[in-house]
Amino acid sequence: MAHKPTLHTSLSPALLHLYDLSNSVVVIIDVFRATSTIASVLFNGAKAIIPVDSVAKAIEVSKNIGAIAAGERDGKIADGLQYGNSPLEYPRTFIENKTLVLTTTNGTRLLQMALDKNADTIISGSFPNLTAVCDFLVSEKKNVVLGCAGWKDRFNLEDTLFAGAVIRQIKKEFEIHCDSSLMAESIYAKHKHNLLDFAPQLTHYHRLVERFGLIEDIKFCLTPDTANVLPLYVDGKLIAK
Amino acid sequence: MAHKPTLHTSLSPALLHLYDLSNSVVVIIDVFRATSTIASVLFNGAKAIIPVDSVAKAIEVSKNIGAIAAGERDGKIADGLQYGNSPLEYPRTFIENKTLVLTTTNGTRLLQMALDKNADTIISGSFPNLTAVCDFLVSEKKNVVLGCAGWKDRFNLEDTLFAGAVIRQIKKEFEIHCDSSLMAESIYAKHKHNLLDFAPQLTHYHRLVERFGLIEDIKFCLTPDTANVLPLYVDGKLIAK
Repeated sequence: MAHKPTLHTSLSPALLHLYDLSNSVVVIIDVFRATSTIASVLFNGAKAIIPVDSVAKAIEVSKNIGAIAAGERDGKIADGLQYGNSPLEYPRTFIENKTLVLTTTNGTRLLQMALDKNADTIISGSFPNLTAVCDFLVSEKKNVVLGCAGWKDRFNLEDTLFAGAVIRQIKKEFEIHCDSSLMAESIYAKHKHNLLDFAPQLTHYHRLVERFGLIEDIKFCLTPDTANVLPLYVDGKLIAK
Repeated sequence: MAHKPTLHTSLSPALLHLYDLSNSVVVIIDVFRATSTIASVLFNGAKAIIPVDSVAKAIEVSKNIGAIAAGERDGKIADGLQYGNSPLEYPRTFIENKTLVLTTTNGTRLLQMALDKNADTIISGSFPNLTAVCDFLVSEKKNVVLGCAGWKDRFNLEDTLFAGAVIRQIKKEFEIHCDSSLMAESIYAKHKHNLLDFAPQLTHYHRLVERFGLIEDIKFCLTPDTANVLPLYVDGKLIAK
């Protein structure tokens, strides 16, 4: 019997160095809200998303290629940009056939780290595109690292809950000796029927809802399979596979 | 009303730098098995435990002061030492009034990191001394960082479960905005009645039981309050407070 590929979960960008990415599909997970926005934007017909690591670069790149510059710092639209990191800001009527240049606090940084560590393949995952992610991981038959973006290197629960949702769906296809993955699946199993009731306890919820009133964003970001597209990183861009 | 002190959980030594230790009581947590052994040794009447970071240093220090050198590397007695890291190796008849010099893979390293980061107070915690730890943390009225030793910087579940057990007992006395702590409490609440049934899923269980047959160690390490002593780090030594 052929060996199954392995699956690990990295709970923070500060732990990513512990995992071998060079033979792995790396899933970038930033549930509130970068990877949910990426799913939404590509599902609604955008040509591509170009992730960049600074606001200045977002403005520069978008001018050069006639794209939309968007981004967030500390939970709100970054100074100097017109568009932010809300999955609800990008309906099809606005974003179809356009390119978005995006910079965020945690997600785009983690993607850059995965690139620097020579990840074999990079995709992005979130509840809105849960099944597309799971189907791809099973079909690739490669090792998997679920990379939680966290918040400024701190662990967060929403990214871990999504990792757990993925593991629950695909674990039979992988060899998993990883307490992070075991924990993620266990905590997802506990809360999967009440994610929205659990959400108010999360530190990020306080940041987004109490400070910025983004309850509709939270609902979108915790609802599975409403934007089932697979964002694949190819030549500096995330495109729908 | 006075502000409550804060409580955070560091899920890995690689995340400890995210927390301010200088005004905090830091609890070193290495459930399998260093901090369980520390509780056992002090409960059984040892004068002190001197944690050191290498086998060579353990041998040197023990010779100089006429103490017992003990330690573990990768789950077994370290080469060159006669005694290991099992809480069951140190009954009162053997260890009373003696000093133990101890080196372990993860726990002693984390303690050194907490020292380097100028922790206000350092104690060690494990299920066998759960209540002693909780009572001390409540009485001190200082900020708390629960420091999980993990396994070579990887997250592990047993240390997190102990952090959750502490949080469950003392959370009303602290202000907790920390997803790591919320997760730890939640996963402990889920498994607290079946810790021994859950244990075989843990990566460390495989290491200790399947390779070294240490099932009795595991049982001791997951049973609360059988060695209720408070190991406090003072002037290079852990002593019973």
